[in-house]
Amino acid sequence: MSYETIRGKTAIAGVGETTYYRWGKSPDPEFKLTLDAILAACADAGLEPQDLDGFASFSNDRNTPARLASALNVKELKHASMVWGGGGGGGSGAVMNAAAAVASGLASAVVVYRGLAQGQFQRFGRGGGAATVSGELAFTQPYGVMVPAQMYAMKFQRWMHENGGRGAAAQKAVSLTSYAHAQSNPRAVMAGRPLTSLKYDESRWIVEPWRLFDCCQENDGAAAVIVTTAERARGLRQTPAHILATSQGSDNRYEAWSHNAPHYGSSNFRAAGPRLFESAGLKPHDVDVAQSYENFTGGVVMSLVEHGFCEPEEVDEFVSVENLAVGGGRLPLNTSGGNLAECYMHGMELIVEGVRQLRGTAVNQVQDVNVSFVSSGPMVTPVSNLLMGSEDTL
Amino acid sequence: MSYETIRGKTAIAGVGETTYYRWGKSPDPEFKLTLDAILAACADAGLEPQDLDGFASFSNDRNTPARLASALNVKELKHASMVWGGGGGGGSGAVMNAAAAVASGLASAVVVYRGLAQGQFQRFGRGGGAATVSGELAFTQPYGVMVPAQMYAMKFQRWMHENGGRGAAAQKAVSLTSYAHAQSNPRAVMAGRPLTSLKYDESRWIVEPWRLFDCCQENDGAAAVIVTTAERARGLRQTPAHILATSQGSDNRYEAWSHNAPHYGSSNFRAAGPRLFESAGLKPHDVDVAQSYENFTGGVVMSLVEHGFCEPEEVDEFVSVENLAVGGGRLPLNTSGGNLAECYMHGMELIVEGVRQLRGTAVNQVQDVNVSFVSSGPMVTPVSNLLMGSEDTL
Repeated sequence: MSYETIRGKTAIAGVGETTYYRWGKSPDPEFKLTLDAILAACADAGLEPQDLDGFASFSNDRNTPARLASALNVKELKHASMVWGGGGGGGSGAVMNAAAAVASGLASAVVVYRGLAQGQFQRFGRGGGAATVSGELAFTQPYGVMVPAQMYAMKFQRWMHENGGRGAAAQKAVSLTSYAHAQSNPRAVMAGRPLTSLKYDESRWIVEPWRLFDCCQENDGAAAVIVTTAERARGLRQTPAHILATSQGSDNRYEAWSHNAPHYGSSNFRAAGPRLFESAGLKPHDVDVAQSYENFTGGVVMSLVEHGFCEPEEVDEFVSVENLAVGGGRLPLNTSGGNLAECYMHGMELIVEGVRQLRGTAVNQVQDVNVSFVSSGPMVTPVSNLLMGSEDTL
Repeated sequence: MSYETIRGKTAIAGVGETTYYRWGKSPDPEFKLTLDAILAACADAGLEPQDLDGFASFSNDRNTPARLASALNVKELKHASMVWGGGGGGGSGAVMNAAAAVASGLASAVVVYRGLAQGQFQRFGRGGGAATVSGELAFTQPYGVMVPAQMYAMKFQRWMHENGGRGAAAQKAVSLTSYAHAQSNPRAVMAGRPLTSLKYDESRWIVEPWRLFDCCQENDGAAAVIVTTAERARGLRQTPAHILATSQGSDNRYEAWSHNAPHYGSSNFRAAGPRLFESAGLKPHDVDVAQSYENFTGGVVMSLVEHGFCEPEEVDEFVSVENLAVGGGRLPLNTSGGNLAECYMHGMELIVEGVRQLRGTAVNQVQDVNVSFVSSGPMVTPVSNLLMGSEDTL
């Protein structure tokens, strides 16, 4: 069956970020941070904020389109969408919803954003505390499974069990790489706080098999990107990051933390990974630079495998500090430091970095980037991903 | 500039509803109600629930795609979107997001749904109670403006002031019409409880200018529709309701309850109304039957005007019981009884009814329907609307 695709119809024309802060250190309220990131993205693109006509986000972002549209004085709000439910799996999915609206002519300039000042509200992913527990947590909390690290650690533990005990070296490499990249990124919260192999090994367990440095930060800040038509993007200030493909997936029928074989040891990208490349007409080896969402490093390992970057048998060799490094690595990864070491902006900072790599303006710039890959939220439901390309890829 | 439109690319192929209950009277939990409505829509369309690959809703629906996808055993979750923020303005907008995903090839069968068992959770739109007030309410609550009836009554009061005191007869006609249509609809919660002109006049004020019967009900239940490609819909069990156009709007830059002239006395459809018809290539007089969201009757009056069905000067003549009636009326309205008298399923029941009218299967069937109109959530931000058409309109 022939079917429509969004390939080449839309592009990211602008990106914006606030200063990234440690938990609770933002001098500004979350709503102002969100506005600042959006204004920065508009300035970057060369668009007036008033010309935005859509707002897309994920994970029950508190900063609603109505409030933002009012504050930004937009002329008309034509699109509002969210990938809902908690978790970072919706970052690329929010770009997907924005791109679908733009490709369908329902809106013309949709800002995708995430504002998250964790110090000003309840910590994201915090468990316990409530007198009553409802929803899925009611099935796990009585057994002590209360927070994301606990829920997902078992998934990667299972994956390692099913794959000959492999994966520990790979996840360590992800952590070391992220911290290494952050050292040359002035935006990174962990800049100036390098991570050595020894320091990693000596860090405390959070939940086995994850140590402190396998876990993302918690931060205050905001990030935003603007999706418009490819045609319009070409006339704006920046080199367009063309949206080649995006997909969501779940490897359903399973909740992320439900214990169901045979899909338990998974990042939930088994279907959405191949689908992404298929709909773009590309292969994993076409990717020049990758940003892979790291709630926890083991999720990155599974995600890379399920996207076809390497086989399970070779993770500890392929997912190495050498291969993930900017400047010669086979798959430069999380080149800004990502959730682990730049800022946990719930993965929006990964999308921003993916765009910068295509433009050639990243602080840790990979040479000759034509295809830029982003994945969002391994192990949650749904996950999502994004392939962006240069003009040459169209 | 030429631009893409979704006209004719997608269609609603199935509709489903639960029994509609009075507040707190559902014997089933909200999640089961939601599943039941979705299963009913699948059966109606002739689709297996496993083949659904997208979930769209609005107003922070508690029934998340991850849980629904698990319970329905769907093969893969490819699209999840919500029009977020509270309020019923997102019903048609959720159809819009679903249609955009389908038209863009990102999903193939997206269910749009609303599950709302108000008796099992805090009442929708309930004010007060909390020790602290945040967000927009912080600006209104100190002055006693706490609940939707208060927020929106002032908007219609203003509209009447600006339009020579007109509108009281029109809003009464909306109420009487809805109750009249409900009497022949066995699904309607208000079936068997007819409303007379005298009973309306003698009913108590909720907030002037709105009496009891100007306000929507509060109910338990769920409703769902399935959006797929027009091509696929033609091969399924029912006559497709083709999506000709859909739009969202805000008449921004104003929060629904912010007091800003000159847009205050408005349903927020001043821009999105004309845009809907323009993108469909149709005029208001092409509409054969209309479903207009009634949180409060005055909102319907403003919405009809702002969609171009009549001029402000003629509302009390045009918006009359005679004109709104099935069987000879110029604009048969809310033919199932709607939020006022069928069930407050947050407007999803209006979309279901709009589809039935196109199929020719409504209990109060309008003759020869080719164009079916729905508007969602007047006075909130954003509002949305939907034009569906028969095969002949393509």
